[in-house]
Amino acid sequence: MTGGAPDAPGTVALVGAGPGDAGLLTVRGLRLLEAADVIVADRLGARAVLDQLAAEGVELRAEIVDVGKLPGHHAVPQDAINALLVTLAREGKRVVRLKGGDPYIFGRGGEELAACQAAGVAVGVVPGITSAVSVPAIAGIPLTHRGLATAFTVATGHDQIADLGGGRDHTVVLLMGIGTLANSAITLARGERGGECPAAIVEDGYGPRQRVTIGTLDTIAVQAARRGIRSPAVVVVGDVVTLSPYAPEALRSRKATQL
Amino acid sequence: MTGGAPDAPGTVALVGAGPGDAGLLTVRGLRLLEAADVIVADRLGARAVLDQLAAEGVELRAEIVDVGKLPGHHAVPQDAINALLVTLAREGKRVVRLKGGDPYIFGRGGEELAACQAAGVAVGVVPGITSAVSVPAIAGIPLTHRGLATAFTVATGHDQIADLGGGRDHTVVLLMGIGTLANSAITLARGERGGECPAAIVEDGYGPRQRVTIGTLDTIAVQAARRGIRSPAVVVVGDVVTLSPYAPEALRSRKATQL
Ligand SMILES: C[S@@+](CC[C@H](N)C(=O)[O-])C[C@H]1O[C@@H](n2cnc3c(N)ncnc32)[C@H](O)[C@@H]1O
Ligand SMILES: C[S@@+](CC[C@H](N)C(=O)[O-])C[C@H]1O[C@@H](n2cnc3c(N)ncnc32)[C@H](O)[C@@H]1O
Repeated sequence: MTGGAPDAPGTVALVGAGPGDAGLLTVRGLRLLEAADVIVADRLGARAVLDQLAAEGVELRAEIVDVGKLPGHHAVPQDAINALLVTLAREGKRVVRLKGGDPYIFGRGGEELAACQAAGVAVGVVPGITSAVSVPAIAGIPLTHRGLATAFTVATGHDQIADLGGGRDHTVVLLMGIGTLANSAITLARGERGGECPAAIVEDGYGPRQRVTIGTLDTIAVQAARRGIRSPAVVVVGDVVTLSPYAPEALRSRKATQL
Repeated sequence: MTGGAPDAPGTVALVGAGPGDAGLLTVRGLRLLEAADVIVADRLGARAVLDQLAAEGVELRAEIVDVGKLPGHHAVPQDAINALLVTLAREGKRVVRLKGGDPYIFGRGGEELAACQAAGVAVGVVPGITSAVSVPAIAGIPLTHRGLATAFTVATGHDQIADLGGGRDHTVVLLMGIGTLANSAITLARGERGGECPAAIVEDGYGPRQRVTIGTLDTIAVQAARRGIRSPAVVVVGDVVTLSPYAPEALRSRKATQL
């Protein structure tokens, strides 16, 4: 058996892996991975971090269970993941549930926590670097910036876009937003932000396919279609986009004039 | 001289320290601290992390310059911090600018980056765990949760509260929001959320004075005054607050009925 002492009770740690760069794992997260008997890993972020650790020669003794969605396969249903965590912990295992980004940001971490608690399993949450903040950052886009943005909203492509008030100084970040990008852009452009509001897409942040596309709410969906943009990607809307070194001159100078 | 090779050019790394728990520093952030010649540290988060590392026996050879606001003292002005970073880098030093939370979330990281770039100094940004996500998490509050919240907005107490649309399923997080809490709560209660919307305050998350206060938009300002709530604190508004183990039974069961 790979567990600790046979009578030691098992535990589950819901650990945020960050956006897919092993250097952005937390110190506590790394220590928990090193001590784990089993790692239950998501595909996005989590898998990339485990591969990088292996490449750097960090030896993890844990068995790795991959519950992420693979192309052409169905993802393991959430109920089955919850049940797996409980079963492994009841076997006395130290389980790390390694989740992309932060467990509590569109990550269903709260559901996994509740399932463990309901089963009487000792469980804790270790925050991670969310892609909502760090993927814009890798493209040189801060979500707030004095004189450019004093608030930000994180949503998905599907929900609540119509409700989002605020102007170009209220940054909008969309996760899982590529499939519904054209509709989201039209809805946002109808509001106070307007069609000339700068917009960026950062694909596969920190990964081998990382690519930044910058335009405006009026142009971004066409640009995305032309360039064949694919998930995972983070969409950022607002004047902070003009700070990116990837922003075309025209957008940058427009901002300079405005200020 | 404490720098590297005399002719090696200096560098500046803007590193997010997280909310004040050394275990939530990133692996890359820790390595940069260990290699640094000089650490220019904020008071919030950053100072606590350096103290914990010292207590754990992690030896940092860097000189530490504290530019944080101390009670009874003025903070070092931003221009002076920018100039200090440039001066130290020009002396050939490896400089870490250790900032609370994430450098790009209400952290003026973009300004420090621009100042270094304008001076021709090599500079990079390492994301950190923002208090906006991790301080609610330590109180058991996820910013999103299936069936309870599908979007969140992060703002300060001062700006744009009036603009924030959405109902109780659109979480609102306020940083630096204690001084203006009464007004913020009234403004938010006037909108779709209503005065019975759950609200929480998490003071000094991960610190020795950590304390969680939970009520509704109608009651939270009075509770805060009665308990003498002080900065730093994060305010969270929305139905996700009911998931906290600190939430009173009345709020928790109200949610259960609703679902
Ligand atoms: C189910 S959500 C999980 C978010 C995660 N819990 C977090 O905090 O980052 C997955 C979405 O996150 C975004 N995402 C995560 N990692 C990403 C990356 N490395 N590059 C671009 N987008 C990423 C994409 O929008 C993707 O569709
Ligand atoms: C100037 S902002 C900097 C935010 C930082 N860049 C971040 O990403 O967390 C400072 C505010 O962050 C919040 N904050 C930071 N650390 C905190 C902690 N440990 N506990 C509670 N609030 C905290 C408080 O609202 C405080 O007023």
